[in-house]
Amino acid sequence: MQDIAAYVAERAARVRAAAGRLAVVTADVKNRALEGMADALVEAGSEIAAANAKDLDAARERGMAGAMLDRLSLDGPRVAAMADGLREVAALPDPVGEITGMTRRPEGFLVGRMRVPIGVIGIVYESRPNVTADAAALCIKSGNGVVLKGGSEAIHSNTAIARVLERAGREAGLPEDCVALLETTDREAVRHMLHQTDSIDLIIPRGGEGLVRMVTENSRIPVIKHDKGLCHTYVDRAADPAMAIDLAYNAKVQRPGVCNAMETLLVHRDQARAVLVPLGQRLAAAGVTVHGCPETCDLVPGAVPAKDGDFDTEWLSLDLSVKVVGSFEEAADHIERHGSRHTEVIVTADYAAAMRFVREVDAASVQVNASSRLHDGAVFGLGAEIGISTSRIHARGAMGLTELTCQKFVVLGDGQLRQ
Amino acid sequence: MQDIAAYVAERAARVRAAAGRLAVVTADVKNRALEGMADALVEAGSEIAAANAKDLDAARERGMAGAMLDRLSLDGPRVAAMADGLREVAALPDPVGEITGMTRRPEGFLVGRMRVPIGVIGIVYESRPNVTADAAALCIKSGNGVVLKGGSEAIHSNTAIARVLERAGREAGLPEDCVALLETTDREAVRHMLHQTDSIDLIIPRGGEGLVRMVTENSRIPVIKHDKGLCHTYVDRAADPAMAIDLAYNAKVQRPGVCNAMETLLVHRDQARAVLVPLGQRLAAAGVTVHGCPETCDLVPGAVPAKDGDFDTEWLSLDLSVKVVGSFEEAADHIERHGSRHTEVIVTADYAAAMRFVREVDAASVQVNASSRLHDGAVFGLGAEIGISTSRIHARGAMGLTELTCQKFVVLGDGQLRQ
Repeated sequence: MQDIAAYVAERAARVRAAAGRLAVVTADVKNRALEGMADALVEAGSEIAAANAKDLDAARERGMAGAMLDRLSLDGPRVAAMADGLREVAALPDPVGEITGMTRRPEGFLVGRMRVPIGVIGIVYESRPNVTADAAALCIKSGNGVVLKGGSEAIHSNTAIARVLERAGREAGLPEDCVALLETTDREAVRHMLHQTDSIDLIIPRGGEGLVRMVTENSRIPVIKHDKGLCHTYVDRAADPAMAIDLAYNAKVQRPGVCNAMETLLVHRDQARAVLVPLGQRLAAAGVTVHGCPETCDLVPGAVPAKDGDFDTEWLSLDLSVKVVGSFEEAADHIERHGSRHTEVIVTADYAAAMRFVREVDAASVQVNASSRLHDGAVFGLGAEIGISTSRIHARGAMGLTELTCQKFVVLGDGQLRQ
Repeated sequence: MQDIAAYVAERAARVRAAAGRLAVVTADVKNRALEGMADALVEAGSEIAAANAKDLDAARERGMAGAMLDRLSLDGPRVAAMADGLREVAALPDPVGEITGMTRRPEGFLVGRMRVPIGVIGIVYESRPNVTADAAALCIKSGNGVVLKGGSEAIHSNTAIARVLERAGREAGLPEDCVALLETTDREAVRHMLHQTDSIDLIIPRGGEGLVRMVTENSRIPVIKHDKGLCHTYVDRAADPAMAIDLAYNAKVQRPGVCNAMETLLVHRDQARAVLVPLGQRLAAAGVTVHGCPETCDLVPGAVPAKDGDFDTEWLSLDLSVKVVGSFEEAADHIERHGSRHTEVIVTADYAAAMRFVREVDAASVQVNASSRLHDGAVFGLGAEIGISTSRIHARGAMGLTELTCQKFVVLGDGQLRQ
């Protein structure tokens, strides 16, 4: 292979050149291309399986096992699920072209904003090869060129998938080069990608904390982070204990390994006994280890005393930090100091407490009497999501197609001058 | 002064701590504070004049003169204008707290988005000391803490203004430290500021190309650029020549030194004689030098032949590049290759050409039959503007108060779980 810096720059520049043409492709053409890609993925099932087998063999040789190996694996049903994902994106409304806020100014011209693609989006991701198809589909549907850089452990799978997508896209009439996978395992490729300020407009990292930090620290291109979720549920003095128990159980147990799972439960002292005794039994039966403050440990048999740092830990496992608090203020202050501003929940029957929580708590999603696990693009009605942003500019929280676009001003005049 | 890195980090951290409190201050309190700041600036007129005199003396000693010296100067009327600017911001609607798109999901909960401050905004600027007051006012009104770093040539003026603002803000009940000017001329201060990722959420550079480039290349914090404007006006085959002449003259001459002034005029060959002969006379009378293609030079007496690079030059002066083109496509292609994606104008009576220009041309503002000089926050109805963004994420084009906020999700449930 040629020099890696030149390779990355050239691939990115080709995507930039294609993106201008993709931006004005109609939804009909984009949707047909996505359907065609879905069909092509299914047809290429054995080709993809063979590539995946190479990755799995290499991974096993390096000692990979268990959940990691499972994440890397692509069997028939997973390829079918990937194809279904593309069809779902095809079925979503196209955000491009919408004009909003058109008003007539005193001088007589109209001004409003038209939604347009951002341009070229760079996706840096790890492990799961289905991201290759998912991310490409969302970028294409929103009219953006996309540069993909997956992990080296999935290089054969990602390359096989990307080539199928490129071929099917071309056949359906998408501009050549609007999707490009960096087909390299060179560790420097990501760094070079993060410096293509002329060709890439936005970088979205999808992966663990290490990847997100590396990308944020090295990128010269704007980054929308998908960072960790240290999410709390606060059971207010005025909560219904039965609702609180159900919400806390769901937020911890339904899928503990994801960013919107609950990591810390805060319970008002007046509710501690009514909530923690029965909840402790349900959590124990589900195999959850409670890391509790002294009051919690008195109420929950089997709870282990919380250590320094437990309240700053994103467990992503069947572990839960629990603290009894004396007031709304103490809970809000705890969330402010320990939370990651991802998803924060209050359980309360008190109108004023609910309104105050929604207004004062700083997080991508603030929720009253609703499980933190609901924070998801599909559940919120955005359609498929590219991820959950923990950035504060452009997009916060669940990001759908609309968040992959920006708005330009449109002015329709009849000769207006600046006075 | 203590170590500069520690000084910058400490000031920024204090603003971060104050920003949480500022975010929930009511519009009434913010507006009273802005009014109080306006009064205080006028009252402190002689204090500010004395500080400004120090800056002017130092600048003259270093040989500064003419327009630069004038930009630095703060007399009574300019302080009054600065105070009026604060009162205008006070009179604008507060964007914070607005909830939009609230819909009921199939599971029965409500989800929508609430507009909230971004957090802490860093403004890096040059020369004109009025930016200290203007930028602080917009940040405060939108609920953001602000870290200001002005140019060393205005250090005394900026310090005097900032101290007046801080004092008046405190007296009106704003959280202490929500506005901080870095009171230093150490050139390393900006670099340290651009690395305060824990304390600053967004950097906005306001100044020349060199400043914007330095900030973009060194910032670890997201940057919204206010970059150059290489704006075109394209006179289509179907244009009304009289309207085209008025629009082109206004876009070039009304205020040539700003980013939304026209730098290049493209004229369809069928219109060249009807437009360029009379326009050439008006431009010559206004002292404009035309840098023309050969066809232009044949039609415009006194035009100088355009040199290599002229069509890539942001003149910011009474100079204009002019090119005769054979088609819409040639004009669009020229804009694509030479434009800076700031403000692009078509003059046409043809519906299809207008619609196509609006859809296909990639710029922060695309305009039909309206002077490029209209691209401005106040003219577009956004109120006072923090600048015109040439970034593609978060905000494109004129940025008002709303663009200094982001949106968080609000979920109002009654016990909904994730299934």
